Amino acid sequence: MSKLVIVGTVAFDAIETPFGKTDKILGGAATFIGLSASQFDIDSAVVSVVGGDFPQEYLDLLSSKNIDISGIEIVTKGKTFFWSGKYHNDMNTRDTLVTELNTLADFNPVVPENYRDAEVVMLGNLHPLVQSSVLDQMTTKPKLVVLDTMNFWMDSALDDLHNVMKRIDVITINDEEARQLTGEYSLVVAARKIHEMGPKYVVIKKGEHGALLFHNDNVFYAPALPLEEVFDPTGAGDTFAGGFAGYIAKTGDTSFENMKNAVIYGSTLASFCVEKFGTERMKTLSSDDVHKRLLKFKKLTQFEIVLNDNL
Amino acid sequence: MSKLVIVGTVAFDAIETPFGKTDKILGGAATFIGLSASQFDIDSAVVSVVGGDFPQEYLDLLSSKNIDISGIEIVTKGKTFFWSGKYHNDMNTRDTLVTELNTLADFNPVVPENYRDAEVVMLGNLHPLVQSSVLDQMTTKPKLVVLDTMNFWMDSALDDLHNVMKRIDVITINDEEARQLTGEYSLVVAARKIHEMGPKYVVIKKGEHGALLFHNDNVFYAPALPLEEVFDPTGAGDTFAGGFAGYIAKTGDTSFENMKNAVIYGSTLASFCVEKFGTERMKTLSSDDVHKRLLKFKKLTQFEIVLNDNL
Repeated sequence: MSKLVIVGTVAFDAIETPFGKTDKILGGAATFIGLSASQFDIDSAVVSVVGGDFPQEYLDLLSSKNIDISGIEIVTKGKTFFWSGKYHNDMNTRDTLVTELNTLADFNPVVPENYRDAEVVMLGNLHPLVQSSVLDQMTTKPKLVVLDTMNFWMDSALDDLHNVMKRIDVITINDEEARQLTGEYSLVVAARKIHEMGPKYVVIKKGEHGALLFHNDNVFYAPALPLEEVFDPTGAGDTFAGGFAGYIAKTGDTSFENMKNAVIYGSTLASFCVEKFGTERMKTLSSDDVHKRLLKFKKLTQFEIVLNDNL
Repeated sequence: MSKLVIVGTVAFDAIETPFGKTDKILGGAATFIGLSASQFDIDSAVVSVVGGDFPQEYLDLLSSKNIDISGIEIVTKGKTFFWSGKYHNDMNTRDTLVTELNTLADFNPVVPENYRDAEVVMLGNLHPLVQSSVLDQMTTKPKLVVLDTMNFWMDSALDDLHNVMKRIDVITINDEEARQLTGEYSLVVAARKIHEMGPKYVVIKKGEHGALLFHNDNVFYAPALPLEEVFDPTGAGDTFAGGFAGYIAKTGDTSFENMKNAVIYGSTLASFCVEKFGTERMKTLSSDDVHKRLLKFKKLTQFEIVLNDNL
């Protein structure tokens, strides 16, 4: 079993979907990644920053899931990062209503001493320079560094993004962002170009259409579980990444075959995340729930064609 | 081995994509379905109509693939159905430039005598009344009737469409059309509503995102093979349907498990269709090509998660 460092936002979200709206609730990339990875009963630590307005009960929730929170800085006089968004009827697109960086504006992540030799590092969506500074603090080279990013950094900090991409093993990115980053419409060609930018493994997230894993000429496609209802997509991508990184930390196996399984676990966990607002569903998720859904996933995608000369 | 009746257009297409444009070339739903199904070395017949302008070499091509063309009526003084379209840069959307129904306007399909007891009937996209008239001619109840349709008939002949849907087993329809037909965004809910309209099996085609097969509470998701380049999507849906129906005719097995395989064969064959303009790629496709790509499909989607209590 390996240790997992998670860097990213711990935040307040206020969400509006066709099904309802919330006040400020627990959100943030590192929160979703941490809750998802906690399914694997590994040693993990979240590195983040919050303000004095951040409720103790939220920190307690993370601790109760066996997540080390000593790397979450509390700026007593500051306010916690706040994001508010409204989803359209198709649930695939959303408008950002409010973004208040608050304490995140001066975030200087400090990895706890006992996690500087962690084997797996999950860099949640943040400024590429902040992501880089985390890698600078590692005393031994991690076995696997996973990075998530978004179009905002391609627009505002592309050089920094290219630099941190040279230092990572896996990038998770959505389809539109992969196209923006490479100027290529075909995801096969886009993945190859991203590969050349650094990451040996490229995971392209396609939302309700699943996720693709690329490594050299190998491709694996995990469809998303078709759902009756997507209640709130917030955090689904981070939950996917947390499942991916958590599974690798648990198994310690970074082969392509095992990464397929990591993608399946990521997809499975993400399928729960969207069932309720924010972290509600992930908070109560049991390993039994996860096992049952994994079996559903197998049924969804596995087939038995016997190839012979007659067909 | 079962007999397969294919009803649909045999036509001229003129296609423009970002990669080039064609003059009038061989097209039509029944053409693509027939060529695709011919991979299975089954007894199949195409029922259609063409004009006196239709080249003998196109008819010879179908015959050379072991397709019975006695049900293709030749209206010597008429002209063949002609469609022309232009694809946008994303290759997912297209504009229809020309639709000349010509002989198709008065199409009265006549199923050849020796095919009226066919076990599998594939109703390509046509007016629902024309599709119904084919079923009226069957002397024994087919084992499986597959119907393809499109939004045009939902707008112009919805009642007739509902009537023919009560007489079929499998419907193939794309995601947007499934949403239009049911007023439901969730494909799971849409499939359930379509199921209630008649078909026991619902296949929802999602283009580059693959295809879903629904039957009661069973769902199967076959992703599309990620391609470097989609040269011309024309006929991909019909090629999928032809692979599906052809595989069922070959195996004679209409269980859900076997329909999964039919979906995989359909997806595999469709992945070839888009590689060249029109029927070019399907004309030269060998069973060896198909086998190799099936193996690619297996690699793309199959995984080996061992479930245990530690994960």
